[in-house]
Amino acid sequence: MSGNTFGKLFQITTWGESHGPAVGVVVDGCPPGIEMNEAIIQKMLDRRRPGKATTSTSRKETDQAKILSGVFEGRTTGTPILIFVENQDARSGAYQSIADVFRPGHGDFTYQAKYGIRDWRGGGRASARETVGRVAAGAVAAQVLKQENITIIAHTLALGGVRAETFDPMAIHENLFLCADPIAAEKMAVEVDRVKRAGDSLGGIVEIRVKNAPVGLGEPVFDKLDADFAKALMSIGAVKGVEIGAGFAAAGMRGSENNDPISPDGFLTNNAGGILAGISNGDEIIVRAAVKPIPSIRIEQQTIKTDHTPTKISIEGRHDIAAIPRINVVCEAMVGLVIVDHLLRQRAISVMIPVP
Amino acid sequence: MSGNTFGKLFQITTWGESHGPAVGVVVDGCPPGIEMNEAIIQKMLDRRRPGKATTSTSRKETDQAKILSGVFEGRTTGTPILIFVENQDARSGAYQSIADVFRPGHGDFTYQAKYGIRDWRGGGRASARETVGRVAAGAVAAQVLKQENITIIAHTLALGGVRAETFDPMAIHENLFLCADPIAAEKMAVEVDRVKRAGDSLGGIVEIRVKNAPVGLGEPVFDKLDADFAKALMSIGAVKGVEIGAGFAAAGMRGSENNDPISPDGFLTNNAGGILAGISNGDEIIVRAAVKPIPSIRIEQQTIKTDHTPTKISIEGRHDIAAIPRINVVCEAMVGLVIVDHLLRQRAISVMIPVP
Amino acid sequence: MSGNTFGKLFQITTWGESHGPAVGVVVDGCPPGIEMNEAIIQKMLDRRRPGKATTSTSRKETDQAKILSGVFEGRTTGTPILIFVENQDARSGAYQSIADVFRPGHGDFTYQAKYGIRDWRGGGRASARETVGRVAAGAVAAQVLKQENITIIAHTLALGGVRAETFDPMAIHENLFLCADPIAAEKMAVEVDRVKRAGDSLGGIVEIRVKNAPVGLGEPVFDKLDADFAKALMSIGAVKGVEIGAGFAAAGMRGSENNDPISPDGFLTNNAGGILAGISNGDEIIVRAAVKPIPSIRIEQQTIKTDHTPTKISIEGRHDIAAIPRINVVCEAMVGLVIVDHLLRQRAISVMIPVP
Amino acid sequence: MSGNTFGKLFQITTWGESHGPAVGVVVDGCPPGIEMNEAIIQKMLDRRRPGKATTSTSRKETDQAKILSGVFEGRTTGTPILIFVENQDARSGAYQSIADVFRPGHGDFTYQAKYGIRDWRGGGRASARETVGRVAAGAVAAQVLKQENITIIAHTLALGGVRAETFDPMAIHENLFLCADPIAAEKMAVEVDRVKRAGDSLGGIVEIRVKNAPVGLGEPVFDKLDADFAKALMSIGAVKGVEIGAGFAAAGMRGSENNDPISPDGFLTNNAGGILAGISNGDEIIVRAAVKPIPSIRIEQQTIKTDHTPTKISIEGRHDIAAIPRINVVCEAMVGLVIVDHLLRQRAISVMIPVP
Repeated sequence: MSGNTFGKLFQITTWGESHGPAVGVVVDGCPPGIEMNEAIIQKMLDRRRPGKATTSTSRKETDQAKILSGVFEGRTTGTPILIFVENQDARSGAYQSIADVFRPGHGDFTYQAKYGIRDWRGGGRASARETVGRVAAGAVAAQVLKQENITIIAHTLALGGVRAETFDPMAIHENLFLCADPIAAEKMAVEVDRVKRAGDSLGGIVEIRVKNAPVGLGEPVFDKLDADFAKALMSIGAVKGVEIGAGFAAAGMRGSENNDPISPDGFLTNNAGGILAGISNGDEIIVRAAVKPIPSIRIEQQTIKTDHTPTKISIEGRHDIAAIPRINVVCEAMVGLVIVDHLLRQRAISVMIPVP
Repeated sequence: MSGNTFGKLFQITTWGESHGPAVGVVVDGCPPGIEMNEAIIQKMLDRRRPGKATTSTSRKETDQAKILSGVFEGRTTGTPILIFVENQDARSGAYQSIADVFRPGHGDFTYQAKYGIRDWRGGGRASARETVGRVAAGAVAAQVLKQENITIIAHTLALGGVRAETFDPMAIHENLFLCADPIAAEKMAVEVDRVKRAGDSLGGIVEIRVKNAPVGLGEPVFDKLDADFAKALMSIGAVKGVEIGAGFAAAGMRGSENNDPISPDGFLTNNAGGILAGISNGDEIIVRAAVKPIPSIRIEQQTIKTDHTPTKISIEGRHDIAAIPRINVVCEAMVGLVIVDHLLRQRAISVMIPVP
Repeated sequence: MSGNTFGKLFQITTWGESHGPAVGVVVDGCPPGIEMNEAIIQKMLDRRRPGKATTSTSRKETDQAKILSGVFEGRTTGTPILIFVENQDARSGAYQSIADVFRPGHGDFTYQAKYGIRDWRGGGRASARETVGRVAAGAVAAQVLKQENITIIAHTLALGGVRAETFDPMAIHENLFLCADPIAAEKMAVEVDRVKRAGDSLGGIVEIRVKNAPVGLGEPVFDKLDADFAKALMSIGAVKGVEIGAGFAAAGMRGSENNDPISPDGFLTNNAGGILAGISNGDEIIVRAAVKPIPSIRIEQQTIKTDHTPTKISIEGRHDIAAIPRINVVCEAMVGLVIVDHLLRQRAISVMIPVP
Repeated sequence: MSGNTFGKLFQITTWGESHGPAVGVVVDGCPPGIEMNEAIIQKMLDRRRPGKATTSTSRKETDQAKILSGVFEGRTTGTPILIFVENQDARSGAYQSIADVFRPGHGDFTYQAKYGIRDWRGGGRASARETVGRVAAGAVAAQVLKQENITIIAHTLALGGVRAETFDPMAIHENLFLCADPIAAEKMAVEVDRVKRAGDSLGGIVEIRVKNAPVGLGEPVFDKLDADFAKALMSIGAVKGVEIGAGFAAAGMRGSENNDPISPDGFLTNNAGGILAGISNGDEIIVRAAVKPIPSIRIEQQTIKTDHTPTKISIEGRHDIAAIPRINVVCEAMVGLVIVDHLLRQRAISVMIPVP
């Protein structure tokens, strides 16, 4: 109810601040008997680590996941799974200088206004470190999806104004930017380099694709599958837009263009992005998230202090140039959480259908 | 839990099918003592009626709202408010011919697959008539917002490829398209007319702006204010994309462009759309929804029957050319519901803050 | 969230005041394809009507249930079921005299204090008429239970100090008191008659028994099956106590007496009331609810007016002498709702268990 | 949704198994600015430790609470509070012998049936160690209640058939049994001693009293304050009955006896237990919980193995003779959690009441 919990049947609650002792998640509602161990969590968590693509961070986010409950002899037991990741190398001293300044583009101002108190060390709860819990939970979700043969892939559709023109899933993990277009990836590298030197940062677009989702996921009318994807992705700090299938482009189409004709073999096009009336239609699910540039930049910005006097700020230190591609696995996790939740929800009712 | 309920403290549950006896909503959690009567509901509901702008519908949606509970002597009592709207002029016979055909772009196929049964009359639960309950609830929310001096306005930013270039709030209700740019409105009229004659339909973009929302609304981390807007708007049948502030454009910006500088008098720009780290920052809130073209078109389309044999379909009868501008008040209602919910949520905790 | 909703997957929201236009319920989460019609609802609703046993009421509660949504061609569709019952013969004028008096034992005082406003006509939302919606929803639940061969029976264990000494299920519907002990039923009749003449009222105990509930219902640790029964029954206005199996008697037992020994054929005793560690164990489920005397009595009582000046009140008019036996079907409904909810919850996870 | 979460606005999620690495709780929705530190948690947690009254346990439950998030510079920040308690001295080897036996009165059988897998070490999730999280969360709740001057006290009303005849709140902490009647406490000691030597165990009744709860807490109709108390207490493993005010005794009363007359100075009696129509009436709140005997006894019992063959079991090792008085602080915690939750819920709506 206070916003730190996501999902209805497969439900996660993340906790922890950037520079507190630890961050983590409770995963509740995971079906019993699923294979689970720390290595499974770790593998997905490692994909969230700073890479060489867009980061200048030197923080050693080793992020060792520990499972403290809910797993017995290598299998989930149906009870809550607590995943715990210690915060190491958390040099909060580095943030002392900004304890009394609201950084533009960050939640410093709004947290202070909302709560009357804020943990200013590294952004506290508003830090991207909160996504450690999401990704760890996403790893649990992925184990459930694996049983259903459902796969999710996130790739970088655009970065710094460079947009992928082709889609080769094999290419995604062959470049640092997780871009399915190798040529675009090279241009992204050039742009990132230029911006890094300028002390600035970049935004981009992540596309998430889901294969083999069964028909029938999504609950009308408010918990439509796409509505839940929208919330899931928009709840990630840097995301400012979400679209499904043709998305904003559909706004410029005519019905005759946008409608996906149906044949006995399935839909002939996929402007719907795999979702009709909020329910998966068996086609590939396609969702995109617009990611804003990292707000922490070296370029000097105008702002105010906590006492509302004006000041200037130039943020040095360890910061990524772009949330992409580290954010991609977070998007993947959030989409996975939504799907598992709806899988369970659909099963709750579907098994009751009387055989005619 | 089954998706027909929205909100946490200010909570609505819509019910009803397009061609059943009635549609409506239960509004639970409305604070007591708020002025309420059927005329207040009716006024907002009337804005949802078919107008002359983009519709060829002749269905007489008189939509008389009746309040059956929760109001006593002109004021809310704090108990659930049941609003009931009879379905009149529901010629379900007109739909008999499509009882065994899946209309492209509609939920016919997915509802059948999900539930194994569907009320095919007029789209049943997936019909836009479901939004009657949303708008009625939105009228209740608006009464609460009125006390706080918070105002919400929805306008047509784009329709059929024509985009508003100027924003004059006074102009919105002076044209049939609810467009804040009178010249664009004229071009929209031309485009609508052309497409209507072609038997096709159009999409567009609705922008919703909220004035005077206090700082501090929105709950980290999953119930961010923008995450809840995204879900609220994406849960409307025709919406395929949602963005906040700069939205997808932010993906192409640099941090130095996108960050809103802060001065002692407030934010100097509003790329954030009034929301930082998921919490309202006191600035104007700006949200946009991409609306797909109405799927019911006269142009013949390829599809299948319920027995999965191929067929063609041309949908005659009463249909809008575009969901815009009728959908605008639905967007306004959904945004209002989110704000009232978060107002109550914030008050639950804020009054507890001990005076230092 | 505002307390008018019960259940998680099988979720009901009741609405309506005693003397408003109507009362009813939205049932959300009912699996599709279940046989449903107004006669099914009506049959259970009729059992809630004033009988000759303990009532002097002459209010004609004909209570005709109408289904306004969620059912198509005699089957549930998976969408919300709105059940609507008009309030007839609602002579609110009769209550005018008590508009400014707080009746002892009623919610008049607390509703006024909580909301600053109250619908004083017949108790408004706090009236037992609210249970119309519960029973109507219980009838829907019963249809789901029927498929699973689960049966629920409520009987009067005690009334006015007279306690049933024997349990003959066949006897329950052969006396006006729904008592499984025919001799006790006769004594109850004598006691009711005496108290009625004295202008007083009586309390009693209802026992609810569930047969054929499968093993495995109930979610640790807070949504234990017994915890949900406790809440379900205590939420009925007149109930002041709930116990499971041996209940309060267990407090006086030793472990060696209270533990139910287990044999390969099942449990040898049933002090647990069919629930171990919050999960059904396959045995008969036994729950009891203590029902307080009807607070509306002819005997003069001391109280205050809404302006807090002292006064006396003698409540004439139409009132039951005891909530029993009319409340029995309400208890049955609430227990049924809990079981269906947990059936769906269990199925959501159980189908995921991988075959080893 | 999976039952490990309690509360709506002030919401806790407990996690952890008896013999896993740790147990704990996430407290979400705590208002910001509340004084908080580990000593506050520890003080309440220490009251849950095995004492000399009814235990023979030698397990060193030192239970050191650590706060891992949600607190900054000694105050709550409004973000989730993770409280972590390491499981020390968890000799799971001692349980190896019962890995394949279902202990009577325990959840072994039902957990196995529900999940198809169970952590048999010390009862796993069904162990009373789960209440560590509840008590830690209760300590947070108590800090909020302190600001409102609301106090909660739990005392032993009955143990092993010995019932307190007097109520002297000062006496409660002057005997090992937390009994408000010093003479009864002495008799309890005798009974406990006798039963301990017999290798058996005892049940009892805990009464919880709340002073200074404001009028107006509790949400009609399902989230009545008493309904939430009933669920809260019945969710504690050993509790088999809950009653409010006169409780089961009210079933034998007449209306004229049970109704609490109202005077300008307040209620003249308190059969209601401080709750009318589910809403607190400003009087002292009185709730009782029936606690069954500890199921682990040395006396030999008949049971079955996991392969359903018959066997006998005699449970040696470290076990309490009665859940009382260790359970008392758990009851206190659960009652406190309910009250804080309803305090926040009431404030969400009450501040909206327009000044006439």
